[in-house]
Amino acid sequence: MTKIKISLLTLATGLLVSGAIAAKEGMFTPEQLPLIKQDLVATGLKLDPDTLTSLTEFPMGAIVSLGGCSASFVSERGLVVTNHHCARGSVQYNSTAENNYLEDGFVATKFSDELPAAPGTRVYVTVDFKDVTEQVLGGLSDELSGRERYDAIERAQKRLIAECESEPGYRCQVPAFYQGLEYKLIKQLEIRDVRIAYSPADSVGKYGGDIDNWMWPRHTGDFAFYRAYVGQDGKPADYSTDNVPFEPNHVLTVSAAGLQDGDFVMVAGYPGRTSRYKRLVNVEYNFGWQYPQWISTIEEWIATIEETAPEGSDARVKYESLLAGLNNYMKNLKGQIDGAKRVGLVDRRAAREAALLAWVESDPSRAGYKTAIEQLDQLNEQMTADMQQAFFYNNISRPALLVVAKRLYRLAIEKQKLDADREPGYQERDLPRIEQQMQRVDRRYDPSVDKATWLMFLEQYVQLPDEQRVIVLDRFLGIDKSFDPEQVASLLDTMYQQSQLASESTRLALMNASVEELEALEDPFMQLAVATFKYDMQREAVEKEREGQLAHLQAQYMEAIIAWQASQGQLAYPDANSTLRVTYGTVFGGSPKDGLIYEPFTRLEGIAEKDTGEAPFNSPQSQLDLIAQKQYGPYKDDTLGTVPVNFLSDLDVTGGNSGSATLNANGELVGLLFDGTLESVNSDWDVDPRTTRSIHVDSRYMLWIMEYVDGAGHLIDEMHVVGIER
Amino acid sequence: MTKIKISLLTLATGLLVSGAIAAKEGMFTPEQLPLIKQDLVATGLKLDPDTLTSLTEFPMGAIVSLGGCSASFVSERGLVVTNHHCARGSVQYNSTAENNYLEDGFVATKFSDELPAAPGTRVYVTVDFKDVTEQVLGGLSDELSGRERYDAIERAQKRLIAECESEPGYRCQVPAFYQGLEYKLIKQLEIRDVRIAYSPADSVGKYGGDIDNWMWPRHTGDFAFYRAYVGQDGKPADYSTDNVPFEPNHVLTVSAAGLQDGDFVMVAGYPGRTSRYKRLVNVEYNFGWQYPQWISTIEEWIATIEETAPEGSDARVKYESLLAGLNNYMKNLKGQIDGAKRVGLVDRRAAREAALLAWVESDPSRAGYKTAIEQLDQLNEQMTADMQQAFFYNNISRPALLVVAKRLYRLAIEKQKLDADREPGYQERDLPRIEQQMQRVDRRYDPSVDKATWLMFLEQYVQLPDEQRVIVLDRFLGIDKSFDPEQVASLLDTMYQQSQLASESTRLALMNASVEELEALEDPFMQLAVATFKYDMQREAVEKEREGQLAHLQAQYMEAIIAWQASQGQLAYPDANSTLRVTYGTVFGGSPKDGLIYEPFTRLEGIAEKDTGEAPFNSPQSQLDLIAQKQYGPYKDDTLGTVPVNFLSDLDVTGGNSGSATLNANGELVGLLFDGTLESVNSDWDVDPRTTRSIHVDSRYMLWIMEYVDGAGHLIDEMHVVGIER
Repeated sequence: MTKIKISLLTLATGLLVSGAIAAKEGMFTPEQLPLIKQDLVATGLKLDPDTLTSLTEFPMGAIVSLGGCSASFVSERGLVVTNHHCARGSVQYNSTAENNYLEDGFVATKFSDELPAAPGTRVYVTVDFKDVTEQVLGGLSDELSGRERYDAIERAQKRLIAECESEPGYRCQVPAFYQGLEYKLIKQLEIRDVRIAYSPADSVGKYGGDIDNWMWPRHTGDFAFYRAYVGQDGKPADYSTDNVPFEPNHVLTVSAAGLQDGDFVMVAGYPGRTSRYKRLVNVEYNFGWQYPQWISTIEEWIATIEETAPEGSDARVKYESLLAGLNNYMKNLKGQIDGAKRVGLVDRRAAREAALLAWVESDPSRAGYKTAIEQLDQLNEQMTADMQQAFFYNNISRPALLVVAKRLYRLAIEKQKLDADREPGYQERDLPRIEQQMQRVDRRYDPSVDKATWLMFLEQYVQLPDEQRVIVLDRFLGIDKSFDPEQVASLLDTMYQQSQLASESTRLALMNASVEELEALEDPFMQLAVATFKYDMQREAVEKEREGQLAHLQAQYMEAIIAWQASQGQLAYPDANSTLRVTYGTVFGGSPKDGLIYEPFTRLEGIAEKDTGEAPFNSPQSQLDLIAQKQYGPYKDDTLGTVPVNFLSDLDVTGGNSGSATLNANGELVGLLFDGTLESVNSDWDVDPRTTRSIHVDSRYMLWIMEYVDGAGHLIDEMHVVGIER
Repeated sequence: MTKIKISLLTLATGLLVSGAIAAKEGMFTPEQLPLIKQDLVATGLKLDPDTLTSLTEFPMGAIVSLGGCSASFVSERGLVVTNHHCARGSVQYNSTAENNYLEDGFVATKFSDELPAAPGTRVYVTVDFKDVTEQVLGGLSDELSGRERYDAIERAQKRLIAECESEPGYRCQVPAFYQGLEYKLIKQLEIRDVRIAYSPADSVGKYGGDIDNWMWPRHTGDFAFYRAYVGQDGKPADYSTDNVPFEPNHVLTVSAAGLQDGDFVMVAGYPGRTSRYKRLVNVEYNFGWQYPQWISTIEEWIATIEETAPEGSDARVKYESLLAGLNNYMKNLKGQIDGAKRVGLVDRRAAREAALLAWVESDPSRAGYKTAIEQLDQLNEQMTADMQQAFFYNNISRPALLVVAKRLYRLAIEKQKLDADREPGYQERDLPRIEQQMQRVDRRYDPSVDKATWLMFLEQYVQLPDEQRVIVLDRFLGIDKSFDPEQVASLLDTMYQQSQLASESTRLALMNASVEELEALEDPFMQLAVATFKYDMQREAVEKEREGQLAHLQAQYMEAIIAWQASQGQLAYPDANSTLRVTYGTVFGGSPKDGLIYEPFTRLEGIAEKDTGEAPFNSPQSQLDLIAQKQYGPYKDDTLGTVPVNFLSDLDVTGGNSGSATLNANGELVGLLFDGTLESVNSDWDVDPRTTRSIHVDSRYMLWIMEYVDGAGHLIDEMHVVGIER
């Protein structure tokens, strides 16, 4: 399989001369950057592009992951900047009625005032990134069954991870790239003493709230600062007052010199997942069934929660975060559906597949690709049928105590094995996370809401034809076609009353229970978990068999895609997989909608214009006064005549990129990526250069807020700020 | 009072040299146009501005009112063009399940296929407009009580109207201008055989629906055609197949030559109501109490209707129109509140009043103004207190059968008087409208919804302190502070069961009942109407007293305003009062919101971009195909490279202007005004030139739809279309 890499490298010249890359589409791995360095320079990069390739050098050495969000070091004393929405959970964790940091913001004026972030908060610093494709796939015969392939890959991954993590303080992973064509070993320093240094109030950091979410124009101060701490030996350690700030090898300089329309910008971060190479059959499944089904299910789900947990109730507080997430996901799904229709996703994907097929058929030596692709489509087709059933079964498996019971029972099963043989997620390295899950239940669980939601999902599930029903579960809950909601509700009442799993201490104690002890437990949720275990394992076996087949077929499909694109002078990049990627482009507004032109920058005055005095449009009065007084300080942009707030670019990003440093041509931090426009969300499937826009908070607004509104000038002093005189 | 007019005329030169009119603010009466003709020409008017002054000459002679909407003649055979949303009620009236013209559109290919518009549809052609201030106010002593003044003015108005209407076929009115400083007699030919000639489908004419309402970018084909018919003698007549098309003296030419950004445009139409001269005390009352109270009441009202008339129920159909209206009004109110906050309405109004006061105080001869203004503010203050009580009392007077009963009883009372002495609204000339009201009840009435709404309003009303309660009503309904909704609901049940007023024939028969007969009627709603009549009359007496005082004080206040503005070289124009006004300006997008630039035109391609296939974004497939094929015909704009759909201007308009012809510099029809942006709605109180934008449908889109989508080319042939070769 190494020939692919060679062909990519030999391609470089043709690629860059033709300049055929579609308008800034691409989430490139750092190792791909040499292949596009001429385009990087042509787009405006002034830094030597070769320096971008090394993850342990400047500037990539300053880019970190928070697991789910991206961030970067901005001082030698471990100061980390990310989005407000990435750090907000930690601010919430520390907030009380008396000290409401969400409402008031939080500024630690000295290190000792910094507050521990929410449990489980991590800063991951990538220290190594290497190709291990040969170690994972080398020697695997084409004749292996799916399950054999699956197990072989998993074994290799676990072995590589164990070896890599033998040095304490590191977390390692072996993700697949190009759907399993390549595997990389990524080694990250795992800093686990993370503290909040500064977060603006929600009225700045979340200004515009859900209303402005995914919208332009935008005026959100979506930034906050963590600080990473390590033991006095410089190594990761649990929280301790004796710990000291981590000293990163590289930090970003912050530029207040400002960007202009059309300037080069680049984002380095950890985009989560894209589906740009998914086959048409999956496109049709997602847009034809799954997304519309999700939308109608979420609508029912939201209504159920709102009814059972009325506004103002204690239960409602526990579900605010889920409600926000559901609303957010629904808005995203609708945006994706609209976007798919607008760009003609199905037709475009069909046309691409036809063109690929034509290329494959044009050379008899490519016949293997054709077979693989045909088999891939057949397999996908089979899988989508099962995915519909799984949609409903997964939903009825959502009750919090059922999730707990299944997790505990599986843990007990896996603990019977050697650590290396256990299912990933149940190894010794995973126990701290499981413990956290067991601790966290109460904050987001209310039995009446959980029960009502379960009943709602069960009512959907019983609509499934007999052969798709799960008999053990039906029997356990005594449900059949003549589903009587009142009767089932009464049974569920009993289950919730009798269960001991709502107690945190019980859950934690049960982490050490044996299989027999759990099976003997007189707890209805545990009994249901035990009753459905065999069925769940059968499902898992089928899935692993298919995943193994998929891995083999997809790798061949991606090999074909890469070669085909190369033949057209185009560089294929792997779908996002939560690993470090670089995307570049320019500050750009344009006209993503007929009749509107998006200005690339918003202004301080736009905040006052939107302000209603009520959340989410309730700027601090001090900020409104400063705006009225035009107190811009050194952060004024001469072109705009005021301080810029947010800006747009044509960068190619997705969820997980949140908090990423936005770098200028010199690799200086000029802002933070925090959102994309709603017209962009479909770019996860297909990038439309006309509508794809990412939204950034401008470093000048960050500095202005810090200096004038929040009294966080000491952090400005701590950072390296260039381009202004204060 | 005639000195004002003289001072206005002498002002003209100064005014126009200084060019001090604020950016296109102004809803001018045609007679004011000579005073601003230099600015009209400077803005781009090519037509001789003097020709605009005569209501019976071109182009004003072609401008008509539909009562609530504006329109214009576009052929010598009585063809009238207006907005789709102005004619939609007539389309709905003719629609059945088999012939759903709302969904399919309606095109009469020959005259005999044209369908009668909804009952009560009228075309009003203004034939005379003259000042009658002297006849109304002449000789009225300053010493009159409010009621005496009120009665004197009403008597004069009724006399003038009766005299004017002595010629059959005309409808006359004597509206006040400048809040009672001036009165005009307006004589209109009342054409009452009106037929639908052509209306596009909702999927064109209402494209974007409530979602796009008040929004930019916009893609709505908001146009439709009526035809006015008269008797064979050329005089207005009831519908008859013997009638013939009305032959207007003047018709507008339709230009397809197209507008460009910055081009002169002008709208002549009938704006309903503005509040630009309201005193601060009223501003504070409206924005501090009434608008927020309306919003919360409407939210409750909508919830009550939606709960009592579930989606899909027969009852719901009857309330769709009310629900749409309530949602629309709520969106408007929120827009007004946001706008008032954005422009700082209260501060601006306070500053204006301070400046006016300074001007008044600067010259002892103006002392009378000061006294009048002080008295006006006192009176307004008193009135706002009562208006809060009235808000709740008016709401509990909304039940449909109570409205019917009150109307019938009042009619019987008034019929005891000579026609000339009756309350306006109950004279012989008004009987046809009352009859229509009695007929129309059923289409928008469902007893369970009506009852639930009444109960909801009653629950708000009982919160009023004792002294604001209406004792006779409380006794009748047996309600007091310890309001028991179930008990009241049960009483209401009985009322609805026992009433005969739900029967149309009963209602119509009772139009001829005597006072005694109605008082003897064993109908709970009639009995409630009779019981509250005395109270209602007391209220009316108080109101008339105050209205009379207001008329006197407001006239002096407006006199001061006019003189003060004149001293600054500015021309005051009267608040909108549903009479013919002209506003002019340019095609203009600009940046009403930070971070966005509004393009002045939208494009055909924008329709396809928005289309989801589901209402309100469900263009006809034929239209989408034509767009995909770029079949623009002669309607393509070379600058845009496609057919324009809607455009923006900075014209000063409000509700009632809908359907107004948008005229170019030559007085040719280049579109129809149909909406304003949400950021503009506060301009009813205070025009903000940065945000005020009106939205027009472009004549080229109208013609394109007619020719290519709807097969209405015969109407294009009938009109005078210039600027293209077909």
